[in-house]
Amino acid sequence: MSTQPKLKLVRDVAPLTQNVAILGFGTVGRSVAEILSYSPDSRLRLTHVFNRDVDRKRVSWADEDVLWTEKIEDILDSDIDLVVEAIGGLEPAYDWVRKALLKGKSVVSANKQLIAHRGRELQRLAFDTGSQLLFGASVAGGVPVLLALQEGLAGDRIVGVSGILNGTCNYILSRMEQSGVSFEVALTEAQQYGYAEGDPSGDVNGDDAAAKLAILVQVALKVGLTPNSIRSTPVTDVDSIDFLYARDLGCTIRQVSRAQFDGRKLFSSVEPALVPRQSALAQVQGNQNIVVASGKYGGNTAFLGSGAGGHPTAVAVISDLLAAARGHTHQGWLVPGDSKPVRSSSDFTTPHYVRFVVKDRPGIIAEIASSLTASGINIDAVLQKPGYSKTELPFVITLEPCGASVLREALDDLSRAEFQVKAAVSFPILR
Amino acid sequence: MSTQPKLKLVRDVAPLTQNVAILGFGTVGRSVAEILSYSPDSRLRLTHVFNRDVDRKRVSWADEDVLWTEKIEDILDSDIDLVVEAIGGLEPAYDWVRKALLKGKSVVSANKQLIAHRGRELQRLAFDTGSQLLFGASVAGGVPVLLALQEGLAGDRIVGVSGILNGTCNYILSRMEQSGVSFEVALTEAQQYGYAEGDPSGDVNGDDAAAKLAILVQVALKVGLTPNSIRSTPVTDVDSIDFLYARDLGCTIRQVSRAQFDGRKLFSSVEPALVPRQSALAQVQGNQNIVVASGKYGGNTAFLGSGAGGHPTAVAVISDLLAAARGHTHQGWLVPGDSKPVRSSSDFTTPHYVRFVVKDRPGIIAEIASSLTASGINIDAVLQKPGYSKTELPFVITLEPCGASVLREALDDLSRAEFQVKAAVSFPILR
Repeated sequence: MSTQPKLKLVRDVAPLTQNVAILGFGTVGRSVAEILSYSPDSRLRLTHVFNRDVDRKRVSWADEDVLWTEKIEDILDSDIDLVVEAIGGLEPAYDWVRKALLKGKSVVSANKQLIAHRGRELQRLAFDTGSQLLFGASVAGGVPVLLALQEGLAGDRIVGVSGILNGTCNYILSRMEQSGVSFEVALTEAQQYGYAEGDPSGDVNGDDAAAKLAILVQVALKVGLTPNSIRSTPVTDVDSIDFLYARDLGCTIRQVSRAQFDGRKLFSSVEPALVPRQSALAQVQGNQNIVVASGKYGGNTAFLGSGAGGHPTAVAVISDLLAAARGHTHQGWLVPGDSKPVRSSSDFTTPHYVRFVVKDRPGIIAEIASSLTASGINIDAVLQKPGYSKTELPFVITLEPCGASVLREALDDLSRAEFQVKAAVSFPILR
Repeated sequence: MSTQPKLKLVRDVAPLTQNVAILGFGTVGRSVAEILSYSPDSRLRLTHVFNRDVDRKRVSWADEDVLWTEKIEDILDSDIDLVVEAIGGLEPAYDWVRKALLKGKSVVSANKQLIAHRGRELQRLAFDTGSQLLFGASVAGGVPVLLALQEGLAGDRIVGVSGILNGTCNYILSRMEQSGVSFEVALTEAQQYGYAEGDPSGDVNGDDAAAKLAILVQVALKVGLTPNSIRSTPVTDVDSIDFLYARDLGCTIRQVSRAQFDGRKLFSSVEPALVPRQSALAQVQGNQNIVVASGKYGGNTAFLGSGAGGHPTAVAVISDLLAAARGHTHQGWLVPGDSKPVRSSSDFTTPHYVRFVVKDRPGIIAEIASSLTASGINIDAVLQKPGYSKTELPFVITLEPCGASVLREALDDLSRAEFQVKAAVSFPILR
């Protein structure tokens, strides 16, 4: 071999152009088409768009050779190499992705519910048919966190992940923090700006974040976890007064998704939590997402960016299309379905913030303290802001570290006390 | 094909174990050996350690079959598959990496100088010999930013990168910010804690960050750039008083490495800069690193974590070893050496902060304003803190956006004025 080898450019070995179909021409599907049309890449060619009632979706800027169809068979029976699934939801997405994989087509999905619930089965099917199932867009939109966890941190042992995975909740909570508006006002704003859907229940009750956390746990912690086994607390529990108390504690409030694995037991939850105002989680404003991975060797690594929106999500889809086009296999993205089950729990032990609303009379704090002490829970501090009515008086206690389930039971017991005007609300304090 | 394909587990196709040699048993090399020994991975086996005077490096915890050698030929002539280059510096690293690649061995390097200066040539050599050259550890240590830029954001068009790439400078500046200590005191502290070397010149003058920025630019912006063509301003220009003025402007000071490419002209620099206290850059404390990529479609995406240190850097090395072991080729990591040259400049147009130290007398500000106006530069505000001696009086002006080179010339002209006690110092203000 010569010591001065002849130069060869990478473009000499560039793969052939692959044909791409988009299933679902909503925000994400349309954005994928836009980027493929306006920033064309020689490796990818958009050839098919599938949508129900497709005529109303046609756009003038797409290549005139693109076939617009409302028959899924036009996609499944074609010579398409790569299918973008941007339909959302479990059905019919599951059925169509399965059929595409069985036909040997590779699939890029932005669908968190599909991947969280059926991803392992579909990925194994892809493996068996020699195709690929990639889903970088299913968690944190445009932030390439799954790839970074799976490959960039492959040399570490990830022991925990935490993050802000739902942009709608984060928009609402950061608006409440900044402007002191109520949850309802912030939600209406989010809907006006297009950050929340008409029915925001899947966002605010934690289902959306739980699906993403289930995917993150499988990729990062290499443990099987279904979204249904993640305990979620709705962010509707958060009142604007909680931000005032949180501020006194050097904190703000975020919807935090987190999981830890100690090698035997998996802890996971999605819930509003107090986080220090200087922390990375607290800095995340508006509809941004963040994921923090904790490695045994590398410490904390954070990934932050646009967690939703058509173009950022489309970037993730196209990055996956390019990976699939060059035959790159993300081996082991999800844990095998027959992997050893682990014990699962939401019972993190942390300090807690508890807000009571009471009809005031002497002795209430003593009664609460005595009841909590009976459950082995110790009060750290009592905070009470002046200026509220004695008949509906909010105050806050902070607790030394205790298990979440022990606290829930203790608060259930206290809920029968005659002085409580509303059920007490508790959030973990994450340091 | 059956619709219920037979299950095959990924482990059935796991690649064979590859033999790994470590060149250089300093902090990083030793950490790689530790992780391979204490968290063994069936795909990688440490078989050789090379170091000068190797006997003083031997450790009891490594596998007893490891060959410890001070003869590089023992590595180059062996059956090793993967070589970790953890020597640092250009020579002899360049010669040995080149020889290893010519022998068909793949090389994982943590060496920013080698990659920034000779990476393109070596990567082409690897391409021609069918081996691989991976260097995820060369920028931002344990933060997998190169992989994320190259593959995770492959679907976007990155138009700018900025970041904090030197942990030593960041430790010094964040200490000055928090405690008001002088540069010298903060540097001595950094040396005591092992965050700065005995000779910190490469860190404080910007050479270290410039090498990393040159790599980032090639990977993210796909433009050729050598470290020598990046203008660097030493952080020694920063005085503790600058943090007081910066705070009044809602900012702090960081050593910022940044580059922008508009398709024709490339802008790049490494310099101290004022950044808003709420920005991601300002939140980076101690010896952490951050990289923010700006995409045409995906907006800003940030990557934050441990930029240095043995274990985090070793995680990046081992992640690359695993990628090389499964034959993963990072096509196009660096731009081809014969890619079209672009015009390169450090002449960003931004608002600026300028600190003068003068022997006070009436009319100085008018003279400065008049001189700057003659260069087409407009003053935005004048700030002066009380309590300083009239014979060595510091004050600050902020400027409306102007080109960096125009400002440098204007300040050069002003430096001859009799009232100046010290040369004026200027930093860009990044919003």
